[in-house]
Amino acid sequence: MASQEAGKLEWRISVHNGTTERLVPRSGLSVRIFHWLKDLVMKVIVERIANFMRKAWRIGADDPAKVVHCLKVGLALSLVSIFYYMRPLYDGVGGNAMWAIMTVVVVFEANVGATFSKCVNRVVATILAGSLGIAVHWVATQSGKAEVFVIGCSVFLFAFTATYSRFVPSFKARFDYGAMIFILTFSLVSVGGYRVDKLVDMAQQRVSTIAIGTSICIIITVFFCPIWAGSQLHRLIERNFEKLADSLDACVAEYFKENEVSTNRNVDGDTNMKLQGFKCVLNSKGTEEAMANLARWEPAHGSFNFRHPWKLYVKIGAAMRRCAYCLENLSICINYESEAPDQVKKHFGEACMKLSSASSKILRELREMMKNTRKSSKMDFLVFDMNSAVQELQETLKTVPIETNKPKDEVPSEEDNNEDKVISMSLHEILPVATLVSLLIENAARIQTTVEAVDELANLADFEQDFKKKTGDNNTKQPPLSS
Amino acid sequence: MASQEAGKLEWRISVHNGTTERLVPRSGLSVRIFHWLKDLVMKVIVERIANFMRKAWRIGADDPAKVVHCLKVGLALSLVSIFYYMRPLYDGVGGNAMWAIMTVVVVFEANVGATFSKCVNRVVATILAGSLGIAVHWVATQSGKAEVFVIGCSVFLFAFTATYSRFVPSFKARFDYGAMIFILTFSLVSVGGYRVDKLVDMAQQRVSTIAIGTSICIIITVFFCPIWAGSQLHRLIERNFEKLADSLDACVAEYFKENEVSTNRNVDGDTNMKLQGFKCVLNSKGTEEAMANLARWEPAHGSFNFRHPWKLYVKIGAAMRRCAYCLENLSICINYESEAPDQVKKHFGEACMKLSSASSKILRELREMMKNTRKSSKMDFLVFDMNSAVQELQETLKTVPIETNKPKDEVPSEEDNNEDKVISMSLHEILPVATLVSLLIENAARIQTTVEAVDELANLADFEQDFKKKTGDNNTKQPPLSS
Repeated sequence: MASQEAGKLEWRISVHNGTTERLVPRSGLSVRIFHWLKDLVMKVIVERIANFMRKAWRIGADDPAKVVHCLKVGLALSLVSIFYYMRPLYDGVGGNAMWAIMTVVVVFEANVGATFSKCVNRVVATILAGSLGIAVHWVATQSGKAEVFVIGCSVFLFAFTATYSRFVPSFKARFDYGAMIFILTFSLVSVGGYRVDKLVDMAQQRVSTIAIGTSICIIITVFFCPIWAGSQLHRLIERNFEKLADSLDACVAEYFKENEVSTNRNVDGDTNMKLQGFKCVLNSKGTEEAMANLARWEPAHGSFNFRHPWKLYVKIGAAMRRCAYCLENLSICINYESEAPDQVKKHFGEACMKLSSASSKILRELREMMKNTRKSSKMDFLVFDMNSAVQELQETLKTVPIETNKPKDEVPSEEDNNEDKVISMSLHEILPVATLVSLLIENAARIQTTVEAVDELANLADFEQDFKKKTGDNNTKQPPLSS
Repeated sequence: MASQEAGKLEWRISVHNGTTERLVPRSGLSVRIFHWLKDLVMKVIVERIANFMRKAWRIGADDPAKVVHCLKVGLALSLVSIFYYMRPLYDGVGGNAMWAIMTVVVVFEANVGATFSKCVNRVVATILAGSLGIAVHWVATQSGKAEVFVIGCSVFLFAFTATYSRFVPSFKARFDYGAMIFILTFSLVSVGGYRVDKLVDMAQQRVSTIAIGTSICIIITVFFCPIWAGSQLHRLIERNFEKLADSLDACVAEYFKENEVSTNRNVDGDTNMKLQGFKCVLNSKGTEEAMANLARWEPAHGSFNFRHPWKLYVKIGAAMRRCAYCLENLSICINYESEAPDQVKKHFGEACMKLSSASSKILRELREMMKNTRKSSKMDFLVFDMNSAVQELQETLKTVPIETNKPKDEVPSEEDNNEDKVISMSLHEILPVATLVSLLIENAARIQTTVEAVDELANLADFEQDFKKKTGDNNTKQPPLSS
């Protein structure tokens, strides 16, 4: 090594602590570009992958059911592969084990309802289209030279009809997948029959492999940590009730809180999350409808019967969304440019807080009803409470002191420190409060609609009576006269 | 015949016109039940089918593009069937023409973007999974006795990973179908390789048949009456602008219209449809997002470039939905139990109508912008108009005559027929008007956000300048001082 180094010239430079440092020649342009590109690519790719992995990890951590689903897919595929590994099984299905694998991959969905729906669709559509295809094939062979024409026309016609039916919403919601499988099987059987000799054998093998695939799917999806669309929907509605209640409380508290810098509200993260909770409700329409459609395919499970009225969940969801629209507009009041004067705020504060807390209590009670699938013994009481809060707020409205002498008996006098008892203000200043009041009153009406929808569900789904009802019946049946 | 009839007894009864009538014995219970059931089934089935057909007809009549799509599916299937009918073609793909048919059925979607996305997903995922499957199969054969174990584990792992990735929203939006095809192909190749000898041949044939299927789909979907997801999205946004404008106009007009029976508003069908128009905007989130995702796959068409900023449509849609939330709550005012007194309504009517018509003019101008993909020369002018209407409304608010002397110079005096110039009323009575005003002002702010979003789109998508801008530039650049 030392002999190789001998006789080699090098540049050195003195650095300020007395020693010298070797100067390395600059590498060529191409090398530098290569390094730069390598760094860039590595950085971009590594960063992207790391980001993706982080996101993926969070999804799994948030909802372990998703990880369970993935494990189940792996398990189902491994199971169905046995039809390849074992000679007798493989020969048993005439070398068509492929269809079983395909069925498992295509049919296995993240919840029981979706898997069931796809299984039923696939089996029924295959049998229907298969027999129709065989019939058409028979007609075609009888027609001699027109065989290709007959097959071609029938494929065109059936494909047209089945595709068209997929546009009809009521059909699409339940049989979309079936229509596709119908077209597929019909084309394969009727057109394929032109080349395949033992058509009936093929059809029968296909049906049996599909039956194998679907039964493996159903067994695994139902018996290994089942994930029910119905339960998910139920929990979604339950969570949404809580989010609405939190949002409502946070909104009204935020408006009436006494802060020094009144124009610049500083909201901490947790409150902000609560304030924004209603947005989940605004955006959950699609999920709710899809889930309700899937839940109808599911057998009885947990506290849900076979004919559980899943459609009512869509109705409840719609009623909740109407509340969420009100909450969305409450943000107008919070962000209003000119704040209402303190006197007005004080005047309305108590009544508004009372109404909002009565409303959110109902929302939380609805959540409890859903959570325990029990009828509520307190609901009549709470609704009565809310309605009297609404009336109280309306009374307060009637006595609002705008450019008039403030009535002494209505307003608490200890915080009353202006001398002449006249508050001079215009409607412009109290507009946000008026809007808030109006939205709160409307929200109360909409919550009542929601209560009715949940009551309907409780009756149709035979929710149990709350045990408190039996012990203290006379306490709850009659709402108290003074609340 | 006559000899058969001879000797047969029969019951006859005299009827009132002198002749007799034969009495027919009552048919047996089973026959009657059969007839009753037949009638019932026929009625139910015929009625249901008729209903379904009527619904289906309406769908086709409303949107002929759907019928065109069905025709195209039929055409594509008929075309791909040729691979069965013609011996050389059938042998050319080694008897695997089935895959081509399957590809057409599965991949052909109602618009170009969806078809493209599925084609690309299918081809890329098949090639990727196929090569991976062959590699795994090779490794497995090298490992001797552990072959089944190696294959099984790899299938489990890859199925797990691919299924998990389908839960990541950003991945799901674009590659959901690809992930499924990846699992399918990987399982078929790696597991199937255990039985199939010429694995590479099979893989190559599968890829070529899929290529045939996808190319038929792409050719038909692009060249025969193409239905572009992008255009549909663009039109959806355009229509929604119009619906918002109509709703806004109808709502405010409905509130301020002078009707005799004030508590019982009778709304005719057309107005009601306009009033409810905003509901389409409320519910279009899912469609917009799906369309925007698909439109990104589409090549340049019409006035849309390849890199048209489709994501901005989602933003515009969200801004419009915020306006729709305001309109949703305007219905509160219309349905409010106690109507505001006529004086207050008159006082605010003019300013509110002015603001609402300025707002809806902007919405209609936005629609025109979208329709013609042109920048608007009038927009600055209209926004200025709207803002001054907002200011005017706020001025009106400041002079509202509540329990105070009505200022003579602010209110038109010709309809002023109460003697003492004092309107005595409480906030309770003017609450609906206050809410309406507040919502209209907020709506104006939200419309301004929408204008900004559309402007951003116009800039990024290089909308043409409006020709009026060139002719009357100095007219439009500076908003007029008095509006």
